Amino acid sequence: TLRHVLLRFGEDWIFLFLLGISMAIISFGLDVTIAKLQRMNLWVYDSLNNYLYLQYFSWVLYHVLLMMISAGVAKYISPQAAGSGIPELKVTLRGVVLAEFFTFRTFVAKLIGVTCTLAAGSTIFLGKVGPFVHMATILATLLGKLMVKIVGAKENPSRKYELLIAGAAVGVACCFVAPVGGVLFSVEATATHFAVRNYWRGFFAATCAALMFRLLAVIKSERETVAVLFNTNWRVEFPFDLPEYFSYALLGVVCGCVCCVYLFLHRVTLLFLNNNERVGKLLRNNKIVYAALVSFILASITFPHGFGQYMGGTRLTMKEHLEMFFNNVTWGIEELSVNVSASRQPPNPSYDNNFLQWMHPNMSAIEKLAIFIVLKFFMLLLANTMIIPAGYFLPVFVYGAGLGRLYGEIMAKIFPEGIISEGINIKITPAGYALAGAAAYSGAVTQTLSTALLVFELTGQMSHILPVLIAVLIANAISQSCQNSFFDLIIIIKKLPYLPKLTMGRSSAHDIRAEDFMITDLLYLVKGFKYKDVRNLLKTSELRQFPIVDAEESKILLGTVSRKTLSKRLSDQLSTERRIQFMLNRG
Amino acid sequence: TLRHVLLRFGEDWIFLFLLGISMAIISFGLDVTIAKLQRMNLWVYDSLNNYLYLQYFSWVLYHVLLMMISAGVAKYISPQAAGSGIPELKVTLRGVVLAEFFTFRTFVAKLIGVTCTLAAGSTIFLGKVGPFVHMATILATLLGKLMVKIVGAKENPSRKYELLIAGAAVGVACCFVAPVGGVLFSVEATATHFAVRNYWRGFFAATCAALMFRLLAVIKSERETVAVLFNTNWRVEFPFDLPEYFSYALLGVVCGCVCCVYLFLHRVTLLFLNNNERVGKLLRNNKIVYAALVSFILASITFPHGFGQYMGGTRLTMKEHLEMFFNNVTWGIEELSVNVSASRQPPNPSYDNNFLQWMHPNMSAIEKLAIFIVLKFFMLLLANTMIIPAGYFLPVFVYGAGLGRLYGEIMAKIFPEGIISEGINIKITPAGYALAGAAAYSGAVTQTLSTALLVFELTGQMSHILPVLIAVLIANAISQSCQNSFFDLIIIIKKLPYLPKLTMGRSSAHDIRAEDFMITDLLYLVKGFKYKDVRNLLKTSELRQFPIVDAEESKILLGTVSRKTLSKRLSDQLSTERRIQFMLNRG
Repeated sequence: TLRHVLLRFGEDWIFLFLLGISMAIISFGLDVTIAKLQRMNLWVYDSLNNYLYLQYFSWVLYHVLLMMISAGVAKYISPQAAGSGIPELKVTLRGVVLAEFFTFRTFVAKLIGVTCTLAAGSTIFLGKVGPFVHMATILATLLGKLMVKIVGAKENPSRKYELLIAGAAVGVACCFVAPVGGVLFSVEATATHFAVRNYWRGFFAATCAALMFRLLAVIKSERETVAVLFNTNWRVEFPFDLPEYFSYALLGVVCGCVCCVYLFLHRVTLLFLNNNERVGKLLRNNKIVYAALVSFILASITFPHGFGQYMGGTRLTMKEHLEMFFNNVTWGIEELSVNVSASRQPPNPSYDNNFLQWMHPNMSAIEKLAIFIVLKFFMLLLANTMIIPAGYFLPVFVYGAGLGRLYGEIMAKIFPEGIISEGINIKITPAGYALAGAAAYSGAVTQTLSTALLVFELTGQMSHILPVLIAVLIANAISQSCQNSFFDLIIIIKKLPYLPKLTMGRSSAHDIRAEDFMITDLLYLVKGFKYKDVRNLLKTSELRQFPIVDAEESKILLGTVSRKTLSKRLSDQLSTERRIQFMLNRG
Repeated sequence: TLRHVLLRFGEDWIFLFLLGISMAIISFGLDVTIAKLQRMNLWVYDSLNNYLYLQYFSWVLYHVLLMMISAGVAKYISPQAAGSGIPELKVTLRGVVLAEFFTFRTFVAKLIGVTCTLAAGSTIFLGKVGPFVHMATILATLLGKLMVKIVGAKENPSRKYELLIAGAAVGVACCFVAPVGGVLFSVEATATHFAVRNYWRGFFAATCAALMFRLLAVIKSERETVAVLFNTNWRVEFPFDLPEYFSYALLGVVCGCVCCVYLFLHRVTLLFLNNNERVGKLLRNNKIVYAALVSFILASITFPHGFGQYMGGTRLTMKEHLEMFFNNVTWGIEELSVNVSASRQPPNPSYDNNFLQWMHPNMSAIEKLAIFIVLKFFMLLLANTMIIPAGYFLPVFVYGAGLGRLYGEIMAKIFPEGIISEGINIKITPAGYALAGAAAYSGAVTQTLSTALLVFELTGQMSHILPVLIAVLIANAISQSCQNSFFDLIIIIKKLPYLPKLTMGRSSAHDIRAEDFMITDLLYLVKGFKYKDVRNLLKTSELRQFPIVDAEESKILLGTVSRKTLSKRLSDQLSTERRIQFMLNRG
């Protein structure tokens, strides 16, 4: 009967519905857990108010412990759970099967690991998107197998592909409660070609997920509304001046350049750790110790009563950071009003008023933001070297928002009355630049465009669509012409099969044929080869695998043989014992 | 040197830039021309204030003349310019070459025709999207050829395909100043599979187009802002109540059902006109007279001093209709306040205050809207039968907005205090329903999802994303399970090569193989056939074309021969004269 119900409604719809709902519940549960852990940390920290060393100890211990659990999970439960998961998914969607990548064991490891990573908050500064995409695709695979069993249909590779795409969309949609941007981002980040009919599946599942996520938030009365995550309420009629287009374009250039430096340094770091034998070996054997070391350094920097007080927002979560950056208030002005009402300034920063985290008696918020931007750049590079389950999209997204905010605040300082156009005086909205910065920087790092949509779905206002799109396009153009995308970089470094992108913007790519770059002087074994031929072949080439063909003329491929097997067989056949045996038999 | 400049920057970027800019200029020029024509009509109409018959005459004459020009252009300059162009583009992207479809002649015909069609405004109620997509693809083809000539590269079919996709995106983006929605809608409406790298081209070109369009509007100081077309300024925190999700879902069901009836009647009408020999012949021979007749009927209905006064908004353009429907005011309340200030009510409706077009001494605005919805349904069916260059997306979009508005106004009447949830009193926003209605109805008719994005880009606010997505998904599910999409319908009726969609939501589609539905008892000519065999073949089958194979066993296809040629040759060979000749020769 269950089978009939499924077939009646179309088992795919039910599958997508279940997938969306369950990922939303997981995402929501995760968020609640993380918030509890972070509050607990801050509560302990604040309780130790008079003991600076104990405060430092508790702060560092919290982060080091979480990172050790995260690294331990990746080491002992499932090594495939380490990292983002998006590069591997990309490779899978291109047809390469990765062992153990879609198993329940990996799912559990990823869930535990990412909970710890996220609970470490903005000190470790790692994210949620990649692991959620990975978890959603695992769930899609497992659910798909279950469905196939109930319905009794055959497993089908192209169907699996469709389910994976839908899973990826759900994963992104869950993180941002952004169904449309989620679908598009997952397509851009993972696929190269794409069937329009899959689009539907993604949308349906992502909408279910987003709806469920918001309903859960309302039920828990954490939020009293089902609306967007980060409200903005800008002037709709004149959100920005016409000359500000240039300013947004310049922000795109800035984001693109910073992104290129980031990607370059990221590659250099990872290559160093991989290729330097001593360091690499040390790292591979002591993943947990390394994670503890890195988190110790990071937590020491962000210690709120130490250097952290010059950095700004060290006690905030990633989400609170975004709230700050997208806030429709010019900091330079807000700051003044806060200073006037001295009663609002508590002796110690507390988590009640996020903006107070950016205040300091001797420094302006913009200076603190500048330090934040510079330091986080290197801290993120360091954090990326840990081998733990973690996403790399949210950090660059938040970082980009900070970069844009800094740019916007500086613009607002330079043009306090706004850029004048046609007699209308429009003040500059730094939050608009934060929006554009987030979209442009994260778009440039991942080399996708749909980040523009993500920011609009997050804020619920689309008035900045054109300036944001311009910034995203420019940042992307710069990044694509200099570097591989973040995900492609990992594919290359992990030595997974990599398909390079076609050069954009030039028609010449269309005139390249397979014969232009294929190897024509092939080495192969023919069925009728003699021992001598085999020996010559082994001598002349360094290949690890040799193709076997049926005849020199037809060259029909029969299979491959590894160098190892081949040389072993050859030496077996031509060994001294064999020769003696042969002689004896003959004689 | 031009060649070097092009190659240096990447000729594709320049191509896309030029394409976007020129389409934006054409779109803007068209809008200005149309506005001028419409103002002129209303000016003449109002000048004849005291002569009712002359008013009627001028009103009808204006519309009939425009439609006759439009039909004449399609008949005499280029028959390929008739209709929307999207169905043909869809067929082209699937690899079928249509003659004369991408020529400059067609471009000119389409431009003149669509100007006339659009100038006829909401009386004829036809749109702009399809023709603009067609024109943009023509421009893309022509520009592509020019580029190829300058750069000296070879023409390449896959490159052509990419240019067409970019062209389609620009076309949609120009109409709605919506780059993201434009790209997605064009992909959904035209393609089945799609390379992610083409996405970029579309975005870049569409952004250029949208930017240019807005800049032109600012330069002409028609609008003083570069912001969105239709501003909405809803409450961001509580844009709607939680129980309203059900209400939006119900609107989706309504839109889906109305859409099914519409598509069904549309098919029946077109099939009748095509299959009924007398009517069909009459129509084909008198396209211009038919267009005049239809526009005469439509203009008679909308005559503002006649029946038009009960219908509402007959003097408004399509754009003004949308402005009305998306306006953030509850009509039922607005109406009362207008009635109080009697001075605001002029004796005759004028185009100064659009809302006054919906007022009547004896009727409420909602009643007028209901009449509008019922009548426009049939008027649109009638208008669709004319063979003129015209788009069919904008009318269903506006119609959907009206439908949603009506639904929303009724909801606001039933729940004047809003649907109560958790003690917060949120009034119902009828404009939100208009938004959802527009997206759901137009999405259902064209069977696309990206209409949801279009409405957000039009209004600049995304707070309603989830309810709108839900309505769109439901309407689409209903429409897809009952009817073919509007564009597919035209493909089928025009007897262009049609690829049916795979059934959604069921995995069974994956288990169908070519052998399951291919015809295996083929009829063919073998090279060695005798006259008798050929005669038998002609007798047993009704095929118009016969394949010729080399031998019964190998069945290698050599070519085809038409029935006509075959029977002619056969009768030539076996004619009485031949036989006598044969006998004589023998004797």
